[in-house]
Amino acid sequence: MQHFGDRLTHRISELNNPTVVGLDPRLSQIPEHLLSNARDEYGNTAEGAAEAILDFNRGIIDAIYDIVPAVKPQIAFYECYGHHGFRVYEETVRYAQEKGLIVIGDAKRNDIGSTAEAYAEGHLGKVDVFGELQKIIDTDALTVTPYLGTDGIVPFTKVCKEEGKGIFVLVRTSNPSADEIQGQTVGDELMDERVATLVEGWGRDLIGESGFSAVGAVVGATYPEEAKVLRNIMPNQIFLVPGYGAQGAGAEDVKASFYKNGTGAIVNSSRGIIFAYKKKEKPGEAYAEAAREAALEMKEDLGRLF
Amino acid sequence: MQHFGDRLTHRISELNNPTVVGLDPRLSQIPEHLLSNARDEYGNTAEGAAEAILDFNRGIIDAIYDIVPAVKPQIAFYECYGHHGFRVYEETVRYAQEKGLIVIGDAKRNDIGSTAEAYAEGHLGKVDVFGELQKIIDTDALTVTPYLGTDGIVPFTKVCKEEGKGIFVLVRTSNPSADEIQGQTVGDELMDERVATLVEGWGRDLIGESGFSAVGAVVGATYPEEAKVLRNIMPNQIFLVPGYGAQGAGAEDVKASFYKNGTGAIVNSSRGIIFAYKKKEKPGEAYAEAAREAALEMKEDLGRLF
Repeated sequence: MQHFGDRLTHRISELNNPTVVGLDPRLSQIPEHLLSNARDEYGNTAEGAAEAILDFNRGIIDAIYDIVPAVKPQIAFYECYGHHGFRVYEETVRYAQEKGLIVIGDAKRNDIGSTAEAYAEGHLGKVDVFGELQKIIDTDALTVTPYLGTDGIVPFTKVCKEEGKGIFVLVRTSNPSADEIQGQTVGDELMDERVATLVEGWGRDLIGESGFSAVGAVVGATYPEEAKVLRNIMPNQIFLVPGYGAQGAGAEDVKASFYKNGTGAIVNSSRGIIFAYKKKEKPGEAYAEAAREAALEMKEDLGRLF
Repeated sequence: MQHFGDRLTHRISELNNPTVVGLDPRLSQIPEHLLSNARDEYGNTAEGAAEAILDFNRGIIDAIYDIVPAVKPQIAFYECYGHHGFRVYEETVRYAQEKGLIVIGDAKRNDIGSTAEAYAEGHLGKVDVFGELQKIIDTDALTVTPYLGTDGIVPFTKVCKEEGKGIFVLVRTSNPSADEIQGQTVGDELMDERVATLVEGWGRDLIGESGFSAVGAVVGATYPEEAKVLRNIMPNQIFLVPGYGAQGAGAEDVKASFYKNGTGAIVNSSRGIIFAYKKKEKPGEAYAEAAREAALEMKEDLGRLF
């Protein structure tokens, strides 16, 4: 069983590409031919919507699996279609893993005690099925929210240790109102720096041979100055960096999250890749090809940093 | 379309019972006869586990729907069984609503922008299904986490306004490590007080005839002194109060969350009610009856406060 931080670091270096593609399949942006196929077969139903998403995702995954190390399905876009959507989330995870992709579930789960255990076991570990332990969702890593403190994290780190999985704890998110809580001053530091110190502690027992922990951190590209501070507080954390592209941050803004040798971070792009056909003004039928092009452009853009 | 805060306040007063029953169906605690029924029909599968949970929940709901105003299914215990569990979550919501119960989904969701919209629409509102808006999960209210600030809340309050639904924002959770973030000093107040001020603002446009907002707050019973402070900062919020019973807090500890007339809060009990048969040393077959007894005892215990 390989260590999550090692696996991810290795695969990034192998492909020379610190990109994670966000699978955020908004139905309204999915090409018309996929929508009409699903609608013809399933009618105007949540099941049909979910099937259109699965079809779309398969096309994206086929187009990028050999050039990017990881994908990050955003579970909200799946669970909004109820259990049909949840099934398609699971099938997307499976399909991506079969193609060799590392899958980071973007779920921002958080709770305490046995509830956090249930999340950790369901998403990353094994679940009690009449006394038999079974893998259910089985993503490689999950994003989690720290508002409940250590009690909400330990159930996840336990499963990470047992199963070679990872978590990324929200430290500094990429949105404008992040400052309302994360940017408040606590003693002589900001709240996100206080959280970063906690994250560093939570990950200390889970550092792999690469020097990186299975406990990573979400650090938005839209706060590059803060990212420098956070990089110092969390030397062993892999940063999962949202905000590049559609949210306005460029390659220079993500630089502070990386070490000089190009390790230590993975940058997310969702819409900018999966819906690139719109921006490139290509027909819907060419969406997968457009996604590959956009992924290669992003690789090149990030590559200039090192 | 009735206002969520009004509906909940009215139903609490009608039944003279400010209790919400947490539907946290850990498989290991479900009576053996229900487990073996499901195992016989579905084998050792996630589907079987989910069906056992549904069967269990129906028994609890049938036993309490006429004496408590609301239930709070904890989604972690459902989604850990993947899409089968998620389906049973949806069916539990529907079954409880058909019996007249108000359903608060305990999901602690949080994200920004269109992702938060997807959560809000899926859980509380209507979702785009090939251009047609459909209700999917349709709980009456949802718990949410504030770590991302206003950007993460506005998509939920928008849906609350449109659909007569509610949210409960985590302010002070009931666990020991809550202090690590929520209890930090920011200026001349604690972080949870800062969050409480935000919550009060988020809810100001959504105050009903009862005087209570559709935006409520989660305030743990295990910090009664802090609850007094928070009650002052959030005069229009209904407090959803965890920590009573199994987590050690008693009726005196929840008192500060209520107004003197008994309005303003609803107290959760999960294990203490749904698995009461264990504590009462009754056979598994009597689990529903034991739950009703425990719910009546809790009603009496809380009733002594006013």
